[in-house]
Order: sequence, then C-alpha cells, then structure tokens
Amino acid sequence: MTDICDLDTPAALLDKGRLEANIARAKAQCERLGVVWRPHLKTHKSLAVARMQIASPTGPATVSTLKEAEYFAAAGITDLIYAVGIVPSKLPRVHALNSRGADVKVILDSVEAARAVSDWCRAHAARLRVLIEIDCDGHRSGLTPDDPAILETARALESGAELVGVLTHAGGSYGLSEASDRERAAQNEVAAVVRTAQQLREAGFDIRIVSIGSTPTLMACRDATGVTEIRSGVGSVGDLFMANLGVCRLDDIALSVLVSVIGRQSTKGWLITDGGWMAMSRDRGTAKQKTDWGYGAVCDEEGRLLPEYWVRDANQEHGIIARRDGGAIDPTEFPLGRKLRILPNHACPTGAAFDRYALVDAQGSVLEMIDRINNW
Amino acid sequence: MTDICDLDTPAALLDKGRLEANIARAKAQCERLGVVWRPHLKTHKSLAVARMQIASPTGPATVSTLKEAEYFAAAGITDLIYAVGIVPSKLPRVHALNSRGADVKVILDSVEAARAVSDWCRAHAARLRVLIEIDCDGHRSGLTPDDPAILETARALESGAELVGVLTHAGGSYGLSEASDRERAAQNEVAAVVRTAQQLREAGFDIRIVSIGSTPTLMACRDATGVTEIRSGVGSVGDLFMANLGVCRLDDIALSVLVSVIGRQSTKGWLITDGGWMAMSRDRGTAKQKTDWGYGAVCDEEGRLLPEYWVRDANQEHGIIARRDGGAIDPTEFPLGRKLRILPNHACPTGAAFDRYALVDAQGSVLEMIDRINNW
Repeated sequence: MTDICDLDTPAALLDKGRLEANIARAKAQCERLGVVWRPHLKTHKSLAVARMQIASPTGPATVSTLKEAEYFAAAGITDLIYAVGIVPSKLPRVHALNSRGADVKVILDSVEAARAVSDWCRAHAARLRVLIEIDCDGHRSGLTPDDPAILETARALESGAELVGVLTHAGGSYGLSEASDRERAAQNEVAAVVRTAQQLREAGFDIRIVSIGSTPTLMACRDATGVTEIRSGVGSVGDLFMANLGVCRLDDIALSVLVSVIGRQSTKGWLITDGGWMAMSRDRGTAKQKTDWGYGAVCDEEGRLLPEYWVRDANQEHGIIARRDGGAIDPTEFPLGRKLRILPNHACPTGAAFDRYALVDAQGSVLEMIDRINNW
Repeated sequence: MTDICDLDTPAALLDKGRLEANIARAKAQCERLGVVWRPHLKTHKSLAVARMQIASPTGPATVSTLKEAEYFAAAGITDLIYAVGIVPSKLPRVHALNSRGADVKVILDSVEAARAVSDWCRAHAARLRVLIEIDCDGHRSGLTPDDPAILETARALESGAELVGVLTHAGGSYGLSEASDRERAAQNEVAAVVRTAQQLREAGFDIRIVSIGSTPTLMACRDATGVTEIRSGVGSVGDLFMANLGVCRLDDIALSVLVSVIGRQSTKGWLITDGGWMAMSRDRGTAKQKTDWGYGAVCDEEGRLLPEYWVRDANQEHGIIARRDGGAIDPTEFPLGRKLRILPNHACPTGAAFDRYALVDAQGSVLEMIDRINNW
C-alpha cells in the first residue's frame, strides 16, 4: 500500500472516513425529513465518490455540466438532473444520452426557454423531462414563486416537452453564519417550491418532483413536507468556507492538497511549498469570513491542523506558508521535502485542479487512486 | 470550417492573429536586447502555441511543472528550465527525462537544497544542470544578490551537480502600473543577476545562463547587458490584469471564453450565462486595479468589446452579466442562446479550466482545436 508521502506533489487527497461520515449525515438527514437525497456531483465529479452517495446504481443525482451527465450516465448513473438552465444548443447532447436510456432532466425559468425547448423537442421527436427553476431568495436564476410567468412557462412546455417538477436552490444561504438564519432559509426554500408545486397542480399539471438543495440549508431544515428530494453538493467533501459558516467542522473536511516544502525565506518567516493557486485554486472565499484562511489551512502529513500557520499567499506553483503571528519558522521542523496537507477554502475549484484523487485512510495510506473529470 | 457559434459552450478561444502579434513583439524585444527568448509555457501549456514561440524545435522554453516538462519534451522541446525550486523527491522524473535525451535544468536557492540535490545526483549517477535562483525584489523565492549563501550554494552543488547559471523573476512588477516603475524594475532585475553572475565567475564558476523574466518587465527593459535570456509567459496570451497595468491593450488579449446566454433576471438587469467561475477561474486579480472587470470583460461573438457590460458575479456554472450603470438589458439584443466572448482577468487559471483551445481567426472561424495539459 502506498503511503501518501510517496505521492508526487501537489496531489489531491480524499479522506475516505470523513467522506463516509459526511455522506452518512446527509443521508440520515434526508431520511429524517422523509425525502430522497439527490446528491450534487459537481464538487468531486468522481464516479467512485458518487457510488458512495447514491441510493441505487442509477442514482438519483444532480450534475452541473453535460460532461458530468455523460460521464456518470456511461457508468449507469442515469437518473440525473442537469441543474443549470438549458438552451436548445445543448439539447443534442441531452437527447443523445436519453436516446441511450438515460433520464437526464433539464431546468429552465422562462416562457422564452420553454418555447424554444418545446419547439426543439417537436422538431426532433425528442422526449424531454423539464423542471421549472424557482428563485427562492434572489440569489441567481429562477422565477419567483408568485410570478404568473410560471403558469405560462408550464403551458409553453406542454406543446413539446414534459413538465415533471419544480426546483430551487437557496444560494443565498452561503452567506448565513447563524444557524437560526439557515433554518429560516431552509424553510423558505421549502415553502417556495411547495407553494409553486401546489399552484401548478391546481392548474392541472402533474408535478412529481419538488426539489430543493444547498449544503447550508440541508442540515438546517426541520420540515420538508411537500418536498420530494434534496440536492446538496459540497457538504459531502467539506471545506473551510463551510467550516467558517458552522456547517461542518474543520475535522470533517475530506479534501486536502498534499504539498512539499520546496524552500524558505527565513528572514520573512516564510515556507515555500509547491502548492500554489493552481493547486489550491484562486478561491479566496474565506477572505471576508470569521477566519481568513488565506489560500488554505495547514495540516501535518497525518492531517492534524497546525492552527498557528496559514497559507498567507500563493503564486501559480508556489504556496507561501507563514505563522499567523508573523514569527520565525523552525527549519528543523520543516525541512525541505517535508509533506504537508492543505485544507482548501472551497472544495469545488480545488478539486477541479486535479484529474484524480488519492483516496486515503486515517493512517495516511493510499487505498486507491480514483478518477474525476473536468471541463465541459 | 467550424464557426465559433457551433462550439459547445463554455469553450476557450485563442485568437491566432493576436497570439502571433504578441509573440512577435516579445521576439522583437529580445532581439533588440540581444538576448535569447525562453518563453514560459505555463500560461497556455499547449504544444501548438509553444511551437509558435520557440526559436528552434528543441526550445528553449520554461515550464512550471514536471508534467509540462514531460509533455513538451515528448514532442521534442527538450531545452527546458523547470522554474520552481527543486527538491530530491522530484528528481526521478527530471532524471528520467534527461536520460531520454532532454536537457531539463532545475533551480534552487539554498545550501540545504544544493546539498540534497548533489547527494541525490551522486547516489544515482545522474547528471543535472542547476541554476541558482536569485531574489531581486522580495517577491517570493531566491537568495538576495549579496547573500554569502550564494557562493556556499554554488560550492555545495559542485560535489554532484553542475552549476550552469543564475535566474530571477521580477514578480513584484505585477504590482506596477507606471511604465517608469516597470523600467526601474526591469533594470533592477537585470542588475541582480548580472552582479551575481559576476561574483560567481570571479569565484571560478562557469556561469553560462543569466536568466531574467516577467511579462511586465519584458517590454520595459532598456538594457539587458550581461543577461543571456528572458523568460516571459502570460504576455503572449494577454489578459485584463496585464491590460490594467498598461502592459498590453485590451485588443491584444488572445484568450477568451465563449459562453451562451442561458437566462436573465430582467428586473435586476442580469443576463445569466453558462460561463461561471469554473470556466473563468476564481481569479479576481482586477478587483483592486484601475478597472475592476468582475469575472471578465464582455465582447460580442466577433470579439468586439461591449464596454458598458461586465461579468459582475459568477457561480460555479453561472456567469452574471450586467450593465456597469445598473440599467436594463434589452432582451432582443441578448436572446437566449446568444454567444458572447468573455476576456479573462488572468489567462493562466482561466486556460487551466480547459483541456483544449479553439484556435480562431479574426472572422470567428475555428482553424484548429489544439490540446493543452493540466495537473501535475
């Protein structure tokens, strides 16, 4: 069995035990709420991790790109929602998947899109299941729950596609560091889609999927009556941003980047590593949170946090580790070549810097190298 | 010939004419200064682009990862400097390349590293050419020009490796938006390595390579006497950060991300595109520059800047375009499915989101799909 210290650096490590515990928590919460978990695979984009998450070999699951849909569907995970607004130019790839037996559902949020999609389906004799995207908190896309355009969109779909549900994402919850605020956001997320589903049903539409989901609201939700499924993504992996919000603990973060000490600037109290922003990503999401972690939190080879250090800056292939108090760093403690693990601000872009993960156990042994995909 | 509007989005476009003009400018400047250009390939990581840059089929060139070294060396570009401090754990890959005929030179900046590398070379009967990294401006790594450790490092190398040169990078110049400051930085960069090379030669070392390089200092350099080569990277591609500095014009930026309009929030004046931060990268380097471009500058299908718009925010797979004045956006001007090109803040992380580029001409035709690499 390979020890992590034999890996070339930088390398992405996924701690299997932490991953399993995070996944178990999400599953238990969905079970408690009486809903299906449709995990969002966009964070890890890895078949091996998806298989730890999904309830059956076919899913359900959520994807953020058509390449993810193709990758997961090819491996049998066919019950998918592509949770980014669809336009007709993307339908040939969706249709190709569905023609091969997948059930990739798409979302949209306007009469304009509904007409274009219906027209495309009729012209191509394509069957397509569609959810209407609802905007529950002004975060991004979607129609607001009481917008009359919802019914008009539903009707526009009828002529060529099949309306199967409504979906929302409480993206605004990423700014909520108080548990009580997250609880309110979660119940608001529930209310927005349940109300919309009710209106659509009253108008005669068969709304089978009522879908919510965000990592901060998942664990905060008390009552999901009327919801059929929850999508959540980054929480299975965890990161410093979520830990700062209080959504996970630092010890829950399953992703780290293994780096090597490659130099130092002793007079400045800097260690130089090969974990630059190309490996950590440019994400500085913790900059304005309660703890600014720079480009990452520093742990030893075994994953124990070294809280007096941080990755204070980074260049493309250089990370700069310093003590938070600006003090000197003992060179005998950090010789050239020493390996460290860096916890990321944001698991989604950090994972995307790599084409595979080393799945590791609590002892620092590499259990397996697992693939992931990137791009579109 | 494919039109760019037939590409799946998001897609990375490289404008061939702009690339050629940027490359020609760098070559002309190096010729004027009487030095060799050793382009840094870290921005594009693409063989096709490297071949437009290098003076001969074997190079010279600079790389930021060993995977780049392996990729380019496999294609015959063998005269390489791996310009990130080396540690012994990385030497097997360097040695493997050099054993197959490459000439991958490495850098280091301490007696500790020099001893470790020499020991490794002796133990493995490996020939290895090394440059000592000099810190000309306190930016990152390197020994300062008058540090007595330089001579000690050179001597430590003698027992197992071959000292062939000195190298510096004026990374501090990325903060200089005044041409006169960049000129001073360029001459300081020259002076730092020329003086060090002289000291080493006086001590009996055969210093053949005297290497400087950064995009902001390249064009600002008046006199490179004593320097043998200049490395510069991002300038061949260009980006909004460099344009804000005044190092290139907006019209010189060769990289853009082709996106599709996938929705809108009319009451907010937002267009939603499929160019989120996964495609643009999380780089917000222009945030504190003279023009904050958000997550990118908006151009039409043909690459003409739409200066009244910007990518004001982004999520993983969603870009939010708005008018800078907050005004309404005419939906008939931006129908669903319309393609736009987004210029990136920083070409290096944006390029890294993709596994290939569409090389395009000024008419928006795709001349060729060209590969690039990522990861380590």
